[in-house]
Amino acid sequence: MSAAIYDHIALIGLGLIGSSISHAVRRAGLAKRITGSARTEATLATAERLRLCDAVYADPAEAVEGADLIILCTPVGTYGAVTEAIAPKLSPGATITDVGSVKGAVVRDVSPYIPDTVHFIPGHPIAGTEYSGPESGFAELFDGRWCILTPPPEADPAAVAKLKRFWELCGASVELMTPSHHDLVLAIVSHVPHLIAYNIVGTASDLEQVTQKEVIKFSASGFRDFTRIAASDPTMWRDVFLNNRDAVLEMLGRFVEDLTSLQRAIRWGDGDALFDLFTRTRAIRRSIIEAGQDTAAPDFGRPHGPKTETKKTA
Amino acid sequence: MSAAIYDHIALIGLGLIGSSISHAVRRAGLAKRITGSARTEATLATAERLRLCDAVYADPAEAVEGADLIILCTPVGTYGAVTEAIAPKLSPGATITDVGSVKGAVVRDVSPYIPDTVHFIPGHPIAGTEYSGPESGFAELFDGRWCILTPPPEADPAAVAKLKRFWELCGASVELMTPSHHDLVLAIVSHVPHLIAYNIVGTASDLEQVTQKEVIKFSASGFRDFTRIAASDPTMWRDVFLNNRDAVLEMLGRFVEDLTSLQRAIRWGDGDALFDLFTRTRAIRRSIIEAGQDTAAPDFGRPHGPKTETKKTA
Repeated sequence: MSAAIYDHIALIGLGLIGSSISHAVRRAGLAKRITGSARTEATLATAERLRLCDAVYADPAEAVEGADLIILCTPVGTYGAVTEAIAPKLSPGATITDVGSVKGAVVRDVSPYIPDTVHFIPGHPIAGTEYSGPESGFAELFDGRWCILTPPPEADPAAVAKLKRFWELCGASVELMTPSHHDLVLAIVSHVPHLIAYNIVGTASDLEQVTQKEVIKFSASGFRDFTRIAASDPTMWRDVFLNNRDAVLEMLGRFVEDLTSLQRAIRWGDGDALFDLFTRTRAIRRSIIEAGQDTAAPDFGRPHGPKTETKKTA
Repeated sequence: MSAAIYDHIALIGLGLIGSSISHAVRRAGLAKRITGSARTEATLATAERLRLCDAVYADPAEAVEGADLIILCTPVGTYGAVTEAIAPKLSPGATITDVGSVKGAVVRDVSPYIPDTVHFIPGHPIAGTEYSGPESGFAELFDGRWCILTPPPEADPAAVAKLKRFWELCGASVELMTPSHHDLVLAIVSHVPHLIAYNIVGTASDLEQVTQKEVIKFSASGFRDFTRIAASDPTMWRDVFLNNRDAVLEMLGRFVEDLTSLQRAIRWGDGDALFDLFTRTRAIRRSIIEAGQDTAAPDFGRPHGPKTETKKTA
């Protein structure tokens, strides 16, 4: 059990990430007090029932009063309005951070409202599942994952070091980079993969020659992997694409360029070009497993049996 | 324990699928004798060591002598040559089937060599993992999965019924359809998903602005899911694309059309179009889980902990 490193943490938003932070903070004893805020009555009631916080509020401004760490955990499209609302109640010397999947737009939307006496250190824990809401969180979500912080050049080193320590005690490893580099990296490792997963699932459900029932039935041949990613939270992902437009369009352009060349190889029967790519990509998988970023178990360790387990287990 | 339904099963090819069939046949006692054939010395030696068959041969023609069920389990590009080689040794009344991921090309390549006295019933068990080779097989691979048979209209109903029963006793459910419909269905649920997974992994490893080290490090944000599929056997998949060209190009055309429209929505900030698609795709995921075709466990039930388990477990 570590000692509390913040006195009072305020979680603005209690979905998958907000609730997981609450569990991780409790597990390691990182705060003396946790307050929370959520937009809907349903989430507030669930948070009360699960005792995610010591106190929950409909009004985020009430939740942040007296907090020395404030974490924005709502969809990034809401950050500007939320920060404007809480700004008058932020305590001098407090740190405000976030968990958004884009960073350039967050700096743009949030910075104008931050009082001079408050440290703003944008962050992004690279962790999640396809489930959302306050019941989907769990303490282990950040274990062994990366958290990227994008402090501005003038950020207070002590405040950055403390936030870094916080994430490490939540189980994560921390990396620092600029917001624009973050947005480029995430565009290729996360945003474009999500976009093409959403897209193929849409394409497959719109066909005349193949029924949706057949798509579902035979999904284990590869398609089902994409549906997990394409089941991610729609609001969160809409906001990601609207707020990382340039980097996503740039990486998408490269993806389409490469796909066109693959399409041409298939049309002209260029088996060597296909084989070369398919061999190269296999090596990347090995590196990811060696880096401890995925399981080596076949098929992600999915259960094999008479019928795939349908019960949700966390 | 079921009674043997074939006297002697010959497995041509002892990779992931061939070795899994051997395990499934042994588990249910579906044959009195299993013979096998493999192209490389290494696979033959491994098959001996694992006792996958009662006898293994370098020459497929020797393996099929006396067999009443022959299953082609090599990459589909080899089927024509293999069938030509074994044809003279096929026993009258025997059934020959395969496990290839395409069916039109298999009918085209294999049929010319099939003696009149032999039943040719093409098949495709929709099952696999990203691993290949004789050590990667396991008896449960087909449990709860679908196997598609594409018997020609003139096929002997008794031979078809017997092969259907065989796959059911291997754990699978069986569906019958035409080769061309099979190829269209698989193009969208399997071949195009594999192609775009291979493609995005290729794109990500070719960037100047983002290092390959960063791609690997932050892969848990979505990308790593694609790398599993893109780690599938290169020879098998080269042959799939070369042999299901028309259906793949047709489905790929639709995918790109839809992607272009999504790209436009991002460029013009059309959040509603994005949100609508992302909501629709979430429902497809639910249907797949309800149909027992995937686990409902968050993140495929991947382990969460200080470091992702790197040991390979089967």
